[in-house]
Amino acid sequence: MPKPLTARTTVASDETDSLSRVERKRRDTRGRIVREAESLMRSRPIDEITIQDITDASNIGHGTFYLHFKSKYEVLIPIVEQEAIRWDEIIQQRMSDVDDPAIVLASSSRYMARVIVADPLWRWFLQHSGVPVDDMRQAIGRFGARDFGRGLMSGRFKVPELSIASSYMLGGFVNGLLASFDSANPDRTIDQMVEMFLRVVGLDPEEAEQIANLPLPGLE
Amino acid sequence: MPKPLTARTTVASDETDSLSRVERKRRDTRGRIVREAESLMRSRPIDEITIQDITDASNIGHGTFYLHFKSKYEVLIPIVEQEAIRWDEIIQQRMSDVDDPAIVLASSSRYMARVIVADPLWRWFLQHSGVPVDDMRQAIGRFGARDFGRGLMSGRFKVPELSIASSYMLGGFVNGLLASFDSANPDRTIDQMVEMFLRVVGLDPEEAEQIANLPLPGLE
Repeated sequence: MPKPLTARTTVASDETDSLSRVERKRRDTRGRIVREAESLMRSRPIDEITIQDITDASNIGHGTFYLHFKSKYEVLIPIVEQEAIRWDEIIQQRMSDVDDPAIVLASSSRYMARVIVADPLWRWFLQHSGVPVDDMRQAIGRFGARDFGRGLMSGRFKVPELSIASSYMLGGFVNGLLASFDSANPDRTIDQMVEMFLRVVGLDPEEAEQIANLPLPGLE
Repeated sequence: MPKPLTARTTVASDETDSLSRVERKRRDTRGRIVREAESLMRSRPIDEITIQDITDASNIGHGTFYLHFKSKYEVLIPIVEQEAIRWDEIIQQRMSDVDDPAIVLASSSRYMARVIVADPLWRWFLQHSGVPVDDMRQAIGRFGARDFGRGLMSGRFKVPELSIASSYMLGGFVNGLLASFDSANPDRTIDQMVEMFLRVVGLDPEEAEQIANLPLPGLE
């Protein structure tokens, strides 16, 4: 026999409340793990930090850690993602009076790549997962997509097809970043990579070279 | 007191013989594992095949398997590498009367990408390791480097710097291949990717489009 509608509604509402309490607690714990992990990783070499160090600092058990993350590497994903959001804001302010989408894409990428190469957390993240293209898409893909999209909309950029162009450029960018870690002059290597992807979006080689090598004032 | 020179030489020689016997046996076992694994993987879905299946077929113990490979994935590296060598020979014969390095690079890549996309072993290999750029460099990098080098030597290609260009193009190629697996028309997606890397090596967009879309006769 079906329960009266009101009763069912009450039960559902209780369930929702209780679910959202659980969910809230879950998110708080996750946030604490991320914060404590970042603080540890910024004070000591990441290789020396154990899951135990992170659970001690977060005041949680091992099991709770693994409810949220599979590894130390996975904790880094939200950390670098937050970093990317913070830096992107700064970079976008810098770009606010630039009209040419090619200069916006090139200079934003040159800035973001410099931030990444200079940060031990990003370096560790990139060097500890084959070539983590999917995780990088999550962390910085949206910013690249926005700047790339601006040039496509205005007709400044032309690619054979959007989805394969994004995949190609992201794979190239991530692997190029990894290569720049080993370069004697990372900034130069970054600019050379940017020069190449300006060619990919359709600029002729001379203009790509010129834009990829514009003066880049310090960010801070 | 030092031993006489002759005696020491004899000992060294015995050691060498014995080492090389061990090494020979090691290589034979490794070769058998690879052959049996490939034969299993070509007869059944790879996900269903266990290490146990491979050790049974190779008539070795678990421990011996792990002396050679860390995982099923690792056994695939020499398998796809052999595949790449075999196909590259066929493709190079096809290219033997083509003079333009841009057409050689484009058509070789279009052929090799089609082979990869059509082979379940390659697909599994590429889909089970983030984006396995280093393993792909080992498997197909040398062929790309050869065709790329030809265009650089002749002045047909121009890139800002060789090493970052290789990293960028390989990262883009591998991630583009992964994208083509999900494409409704993989051949079309491959050609679009090739069109983009012809831009990277310095061709103008019109010529890149034309060369990436030349007719491509069947390989066999």
